[in-house]
This record gives sequence, structure tokens and C-alpha cells, in this order.
Amino acid sequence: MFLESTREVRLASRPAGMPTAANFEIATTPVPPLKAGEVLVKNLWMSVDPYMRGRMVDRESYVPPFQVGKALEGGAVGEVVESSSPKFKVGDIVLSSFGWREHFVAADTQVHRVDTRLAPPQAWLGVIGMTGMTAWTGLTRIAHIQAGETVFVSAASGAVGAIAVQIAKLHGCRVVASVGSDEKANWVRELGADAVINYRTAGDLTAALKAAAPEGIDVYFENVGGAHLEAALNALKPNGRVAVCGMIEQYNATEAPKGPSNLAQVIMKRLRLEGFIVSDHWDHYPQFVGEMATWLAAGKIQTRETVREGLEAAPEAFIGLFRGENTGKMLVKLA
Amino acid sequence: MFLESTREVRLASRPAGMPTAANFEIATTPVPPLKAGEVLVKNLWMSVDPYMRGRMVDRESYVPPFQVGKALEGGAVGEVVESSSPKFKVGDIVLSSFGWREHFVAADTQVHRVDTRLAPPQAWLGVIGMTGMTAWTGLTRIAHIQAGETVFVSAASGAVGAIAVQIAKLHGCRVVASVGSDEKANWVRELGADAVINYRTAGDLTAALKAAAPEGIDVYFENVGGAHLEAALNALKPNGRVAVCGMIEQYNATEAPKGPSNLAQVIMKRLRLEGFIVSDHWDHYPQFVGEMATWLAAGKIQTRETVREGLEAAPEAFIGLFRGENTGKMLVKLA
Repeated sequence: MFLESTREVRLASRPAGMPTAANFEIATTPVPPLKAGEVLVKNLWMSVDPYMRGRMVDRESYVPPFQVGKALEGGAVGEVVESSSPKFKVGDIVLSSFGWREHFVAADTQVHRVDTRLAPPQAWLGVIGMTGMTAWTGLTRIAHIQAGETVFVSAASGAVGAIAVQIAKLHGCRVVASVGSDEKANWVRELGADAVINYRTAGDLTAALKAAAPEGIDVYFENVGGAHLEAALNALKPNGRVAVCGMIEQYNATEAPKGPSNLAQVIMKRLRLEGFIVSDHWDHYPQFVGEMATWLAAGKIQTRETVREGLEAAPEAFIGLFRGENTGKMLVKLA
Repeated sequence: MFLESTREVRLASRPAGMPTAANFEIATTPVPPLKAGEVLVKNLWMSVDPYMRGRMVDRESYVPPFQVGKALEGGAVGEVVESSSPKFKVGDIVLSSFGWREHFVAADTQVHRVDTRLAPPQAWLGVIGMTGMTAWTGLTRIAHIQAGETVFVSAASGAVGAIAVQIAKLHGCRVVASVGSDEKANWVRELGADAVINYRTAGDLTAALKAAAPEGIDVYFENVGGAHLEAALNALKPNGRVAVCGMIEQYNATEAPKGPSNLAQVIMKRLRLEGFIVSDHWDHYPQFVGEMATWLAAGKIQTRETVREGLEAAPEAFIGLFRGENTGKMLVKLA
């Protein structure tokens, strides 16, 4: 196969507040001929994730910021269409961090074959990929959930949240979930959540959480920040744990966000708040895949996908994450 | 010895904001005759501690609130003046939680003999008592300080802070301290702090901390809250730890305190914030006493006391804690 050029999404400018279409541009870029040990991959699916918003800011962080005028990056699953590597053959399905583009050339060390007998290609971006691994890591390796505990999951109809709800249930926990619509609430109940709060209509979140978990919560899986964290700090039992996965409410803030006013609860209740980044835990990925593949095979984990079609749709798919447009994993289907 | 009555300090009313003298009253109360197994103790020293402010509020907490019209409680060291217990003899020096009074009668299970060969009586309220144990617990059992790390201690000229500075140095750490006056800064430098910030004159604390620890801090021993915590979150290195001991800035707040605006640093830098209460760790008190007695005997720990005289002075001694009137441990000498 010979391909002269492909298309990619570049960062046109750094967003101020909520990203807009104008922060992105679609560009055509040449495809270089393969060197020894390289593969040409046609992307089938790409992931959009809230954490990418952080990389759009020019600041020191755990991953380097995206560069204006350069292609964005992110999880993608594609098909090898040309290979000059002995490790990959045409037709292999591979995972990479070269999302936001239709094709790419990369060294064979930069792509990873996925087993589509265990789960379909796009699931390796979601339930059995970074998304599922994030939920699993936060619950099991950061919060150390135990059977019988009450776990509160915010953004529970989101990609990570929906899996966190189900993993917590599989561990024998009681789950309280918060979501942003009644429709999402219904779905999260189907996933097994014992009590669901629609935070847009619930009014005072502390009162809502008190009603949903009168004896308090043991663990908070934090995806949101702001009033959710404040309510969780009020609801946590002594020695409670907070696995801090994300604070999506703050990612587009144009003013300094308000921190929780009740942080002194951390002392009075000897709470532990711990932030984590899934990439620090990849050494446990095989263990996670083993557990998740077993759950999937037994029909014990349900997923939903919100799919946008075509590279042009990628910026809006990404922006939609911050408007709560996704139920389950937000994906862009590229081919 | 027969004693008809003694004096105690009672909570006259619950403080709103900063406590005032009017929130306290000194009352005379009868001393009951001893029953079998009881002792009569004449207090020599009593402790005033910031945590007591929390007990003046009528709310659920790890210790029950003080009751209006009843004597306050707190650490005290006294001398047994009458005993109907085989476990104590007249002249024994004992530690109890019956502070805020000149004498008391208690069961022999409620007082604990202290070894005045290891440290003088009042030190059992301070460096080798709850105060020192708090510093030791936060650094070693919560933050797990390691030699070579940089540790930031706020309220570093306070009772707990001054000991934390010295324990961190004894563990081979670099110590950055914050205090509220140049005089306190000088003392904390004498204790071994490598860099000292006077937070009242430093301006932007994030910048001051950056200057004091250009490569960042590994551990923050949190006594203050507010801008101190915000600056620490900015300064912490990846995988940094915060031992949350207190947030004195907030104890007298009349409006909801502002939380740190940069709590998302917890995710980006995978930070761990952990609150603790020394009373959860008393099983390690013998270990602490062993280490501290060795350090004291070797002259490796210095202490200062700020002493007020007489029971009448106790309310002002307590209020003075929130005005930074103490250098080192604030004590009331009762006899």
C-alpha cells in the first residue's frame, strides 16, 4: 500500500476556558515511506478523554503539553496496513497513542497488538484499556475498597465512572453514584448502583448524599471536584479514602476554582486523599486485563459508547465531554 | 489532706469566631471525699492546645464537645496529694486529661505516672507528651519522611512545629519552616531549619516557598491551612505527602473558609493528603518515648515554653495560641 498523505487534528490555539472548534484545525500531512522496523497504521477508533484538556495548557505537568500547530495525541486503535517490522503483519490490530489522525507511521515499539478475541478493537480504548484500568486502579490500588463498604462515584455515567460503579459492585460494595440527567441515572441503576443522585436537580449535594448513604461513605472515587468533593468530605466516615482521579469541573475554569471549605474534615475524620495517574500503574495492567476479561466473558460488566463519526467530529466529541454529552465512553470512529 | 473545694475553668458560652474571656468562667467546685481506688491530684501544669477550639463547638467530632457550664478538659500534670489506690502514693507525678482545674479526684485508671528522671513534669505535656508525639507521628507514621527529603513545616515555632523541625533534621531531611515573626524565625533557625519564611512579611507564599526550596518539597507538615496549604500544593514534588495535623487558620473562622484553588495538583502530582489524630497512635507511644528520651538525653532536641501563671490566666493563654503569642509550648503553671 502506498499512501501519500493523511489527515490529522492539530491544536490551532490554546483554549481559554471551554475549548471551541476554533482551537482545532484539520490538516493534511505527508506520510513518509516506511523505514526498517516501522509500521503504517490506519486508525479505526480514537479516544477523547478529559485529561487531554490539561495537555492543551502550556505548563509543567506529568505529560508534556501539546504544541500549537502540531497534531494532538491520544489513545487510538488501528489496523496495520503496511509493515517493515518482523513483529507486525498487515491486518494486526494495534493500540497506540497516535490518535487524532487517520494514519500514522511509527516504530514497532510504539504500537501494541491487542487481542480482539477478548474484546472488540474499541474496547481496548475503553473498558479493557486505559479507561477501565483507571477505574480499577483507583478503587483497588488507591482506595483499597473492601466488601461491605459504601463507595461514592461521581460522573458515574462517564467512561471511567460507569466501570468504577460495576467494579465496586463486583467487590461487594454498596454504591452511591452521581450523574447529570435522569436518563443517565436510569442507566447507572441498571449497572447496579444502589442509590443515584442527579446532581443537576438534587439541590444541596451534602443533603442528597446523606439521604443516599445515611451512615456515610467509606470511599469517594473523585472525578468532578467542587461541590461533589465538599459533599463527599462531609459524608466520609472516619478513616475514609478519596481516590482522586479527576476534577472535570475545574478543567475549563477561567478563574481560580474554589476549593472545598471543609477540608478540615481531613483532620477530624483522619481522611486520606490520594491522587493517581493510571500510567504510573501499567505494571499492573496484565492483572487488570485478566480480571476484566473474565468479567467481560461472564457478562458481568456492561458498557455503552457514545460514538462520533469521522476525524472532523473529533473536536466536538472532545468538547462534548465537558458538556456531559457522553454516556459511557466517548469515541470517534475513523474507519 | 482534706480539701473542701477547688477551682476550675468552665465553658460559659460557645465562642463565635475568636474566643474571648467572656466564653470562660472560673468557678469553685466541691472536692468529694476519696473512694477506694481514687486519687486526689493537685495540678502543677496544664496544657492549652489549638485542638481544644474544636471541642468548644457543638458538633459531631472525634471527641465529644465541651458542655456549657461544665469544666473544660485537657492535658495536665499534677502531684498526687491523697491516694486510696494501691497504685499511687502521695508525691507521684501523674498525667491526666483533667486540666483547667487546680485539683481533681479521679480513678487510678484515669491518671498515668510519668518518669521525671527522663524529663521534667511539664515536658510530659509537651516535647515527650502529646505535642512531641504529634510531631513524631505526622512525620514518621503519616508522611514517612526519608533522609535527604525536603520537609516544609508551618507554624514551625509552635509547640508541635518546633519539634517537627528538629525530628525532621534528626532524620536527615532538609527543613523549610514558616513562622509569624523574625524573632521566631531566628529561633527556628537555631533549631536547625535550613530556610525560614516569615509568612507575615513574605508576600506571595508560593514564591517564597519556591525560593526556599527551588526543587520543591517532598513533605508538608500542615498546621495552618489556607494560603500555606495552597503554596505547599504548588511546591510539592510528584508523589509528595501532606501530613494534615491542623488548620489553625480556620478554627475561628466565622465564614466558610476558602479551600485551596489548586487541589487539582493532587492529581497531576499524585499527592497524598492524610489527616491524623495523635490519639489513634498511642500504641506507638512507648516507641516515641524511647526515641525522644534518647534525643533529649543527648541534647539533640531543644524546647521553649511560653508560661502563663495561675488558673485565671488559662483562658488568655488559650486565646493567645490563635494570636501567635507562644514560642514553643504554651503552658499554664498552676502550682
